[in-house]
Amino acid sequence: MDNDAAAAAAVCRTLASIRSRGPLIHNITNVVVANVTANALLAIGASPAMVQAEEEVAEFARLADALVVNLGTVTAERAAAMRLAVAAAGEAGTPWVLDPVAVGAIAFRTRLAEELVGSRPAAIRGNASEILSLAGMGGAGRGVDSTALSDSAREAARQLAGRTGAAVAVTGPIDYVTNGAREIAIRNGHPMMTRITGSGCTATALLGACLAVEADAVAASAHALVLLGVAGEIAAERARGPGSLQVELLDALYQLDDRIVLQRARITAEPAGPG
Amino acid sequence: MDNDAAAAAAVCRTLASIRSRGPLIHNITNVVVANVTANALLAIGASPAMVQAEEEVAEFARLADALVVNLGTVTAERAAAMRLAVAAAGEAGTPWVLDPVAVGAIAFRTRLAEELVGSRPAAIRGNASEILSLAGMGGAGRGVDSTALSDSAREAARQLAGRTGAAVAVTGPIDYVTNGAREIAIRNGHPMMTRITGSGCTATALLGACLAVEADAVAASAHALVLLGVAGEIAAERARGPGSLQVELLDALYQLDDRIVLQRARITAEPAGPG
Amino acid sequence: MDNDAAAAAAVCRTLASIRSRGPLIHNITNVVVANVTANALLAIGASPAMVQAEEEVAEFARLADALVVNLGTVTAERAAAMRLAVAAAGEAGTPWVLDPVAVGAIAFRTRLAEELVGSRPAAIRGNASEILSLAGMGGAGRGVDSTALSDSAREAARQLAGRTGAAVAVTGPIDYVTNGAREIAIRNGHPMMTRITGSGCTATALLGACLAVEADAVAASAHALVLLGVAGEIAAERARGPGSLQVELLDALYQLDDRIVLQRARITAEPAGPG
Repeated sequence: MDNDAAAAAAVCRTLASIRSRGPLIHNITNVVVANVTANALLAIGASPAMVQAEEEVAEFARLADALVVNLGTVTAERAAAMRLAVAAAGEAGTPWVLDPVAVGAIAFRTRLAEELVGSRPAAIRGNASEILSLAGMGGAGRGVDSTALSDSAREAARQLAGRTGAAVAVTGPIDYVTNGAREIAIRNGHPMMTRITGSGCTATALLGACLAVEADAVAASAHALVLLGVAGEIAAERARGPGSLQVELLDALYQLDDRIVLQRARITAEPAGPG
Repeated sequence: MDNDAAAAAAVCRTLASIRSRGPLIHNITNVVVANVTANALLAIGASPAMVQAEEEVAEFARLADALVVNLGTVTAERAAAMRLAVAAAGEAGTPWVLDPVAVGAIAFRTRLAEELVGSRPAAIRGNASEILSLAGMGGAGRGVDSTALSDSAREAARQLAGRTGAAVAVTGPIDYVTNGAREIAIRNGHPMMTRITGSGCTATALLGACLAVEADAVAASAHALVLLGVAGEIAAERARGPGSLQVELLDALYQLDDRIVLQRARITAEPAGPG
Repeated sequence: MDNDAAAAAAVCRTLASIRSRGPLIHNITNVVVANVTANALLAIGASPAMVQAEEEVAEFARLADALVVNLGTVTAERAAAMRLAVAAAGEAGTPWVLDPVAVGAIAFRTRLAEELVGSRPAAIRGNASEILSLAGMGGAGRGVDSTALSDSAREAARQLAGRTGAAVAVTGPIDYVTNGAREIAIRNGHPMMTRITGSGCTATALLGACLAVEADAVAASAHALVLLGVAGEIAAERARGPGSLQVELLDALYQLDDRIVLQRARITAEPAGPG
């Protein structure tokens, strides 16, 4: 399928909107990636805040331009905060995205994720194991890493999108975004990104930034994955290993411009039926 | 106003004291910056410890040479620990510094900050929005980033200093430190530092290290801001973006010496009256 | 004493096993080093997961190939999770390693560590102060940094090993590993590693990865310390300060190969009697 030049141009418009508006992104996230996702959001031009107390999240979710809910290192207290934040986001019309980290591998967070998807996330992003699990099609995973390829979860993503009304992004060597009717594939990124912790969480955080400026959740999800994938490719070309990859990734996000995005974006519309 | 050569020499003495004594700095801080502030303290020559449990903080605050209390990602449990630590520090004579992250934007932590400033912090460091809010002069801010310039908060800083007895540092393009009577301006730093998370928190952590070796809280606050600002300038000259800026910042803090500080410090006494 | 070529070859075999099997390492760790230890495990070829909720840890400790329990920034809630995880690991036969961060300096975690060592850790890794304290031989330490040299804790390590059945690793300028009968010394590493936070915690995390593929806990502990020490030496040769050291350390762990390990490993059997 041909690369979609119009879609790449739309990625540039989303990037420009983030940089001009500096949207406030409320993250309830895990202790492993709080720093790197905040830095990724700053690098792309957004304004992150990692407010997580039950006493604060509802008030802040109403202020924010988007909310990111990430289940990594979740506890019962944090789960309570997530419920409050998601409810407040729903009332205030703040779009929110769910990252169901390690869902399927552990019962507690699997139940939590199943509950949260009922609160109308604008988008859900996971790896193949996580999306298969959330769709009720197996995929127990193994810890936080997927044991399945993203291709295998395409049908699961469509069903999950149909049931929840969310744009569902399943990331892997190829990323797919679907709402059940439309489907987009992104072929950016680099395998070394799986050797740094939080690259999936970073995708979800950037998805939050895109949702804040682009109302079409399928487009917002695809744009975030292009931006991260392109930055990841550039970073991998400069890196000598995962330590320098993380550093170069933040620099590359900061340096992204239209020329780079138009040159490197590999984004295509896909047939939405069973592939 | 002329650069103050005597003040720059005093910064060098504070740096030498930190390096020779390796003061133990107790940090109750947020999950986003715990790693980078610990690394900044190690880079400058201090010994950080991030003890945060209610069961431990009072004992540790008595042992420490200074205590840093940072409200980012605060929860009710962490707030309880902060109260215990601050009380123990007061009894033991451990100087402590408050970083009122995002105060004004959220009611819960605004009340907490108002309570904590009553427990005699030696210093308070915030951006303009945070200091305006703590002084009861508005400044609701927007998330963790200031919506006001540091100049606008100078009068608020003086009033807050007068009311609390603390040295108050308001940071921004120009940093101001005041105790209501004396006032110092620091014109170091680089705009790219606002694109890495925790640069304000790092300033506060270094302020703790300076407080541990310099009893004059106005001087200690100013010295910390010079050290970070100078390191930030050097880092920005070497960096290609915020990822490498963070790395270079830690390297530059580690490499600071008298020659660099005397050459680059831009620290001046200011008239303390309404500017 | 001569370098032990057979031991260095065994380090290579352990590294190869980690890379081919990608063992799942369950970490209950502190907020300061969660990111860097996850990244170190990914860099060496393991699959880290930082599951910490009371609701999740028992289930996950049974799934994992090894469990790492790190007392830094411990709270009462986290302590409860550690007890559950350690019990589940014991039932499931998952080997686990204890990092008694700052034990001796603070009463709460000293009691917790004394309790946990009764649950049959396969290995314990600490600095001299921590091991002296756990062995009941003083060593109150000062915050998280040791006030004693590793040599001084060798006898304490032997006694602690004899009492608990664990391999005990005491790290410092020279690292020692003992089970009370056998003893190994590792003379790799670089002093600048003490200027980045979490280098000890990283050693313990890598020890978990080695335990997952090497049943002899003395060998596994020694292999982890060689791998980290060799990577640290390479990183220090490339670094300009602690910021770049952390980046280079992850790159060096990722780049380790048999040639590098065989060339640089400084591992020797030591007489186990009073040195």
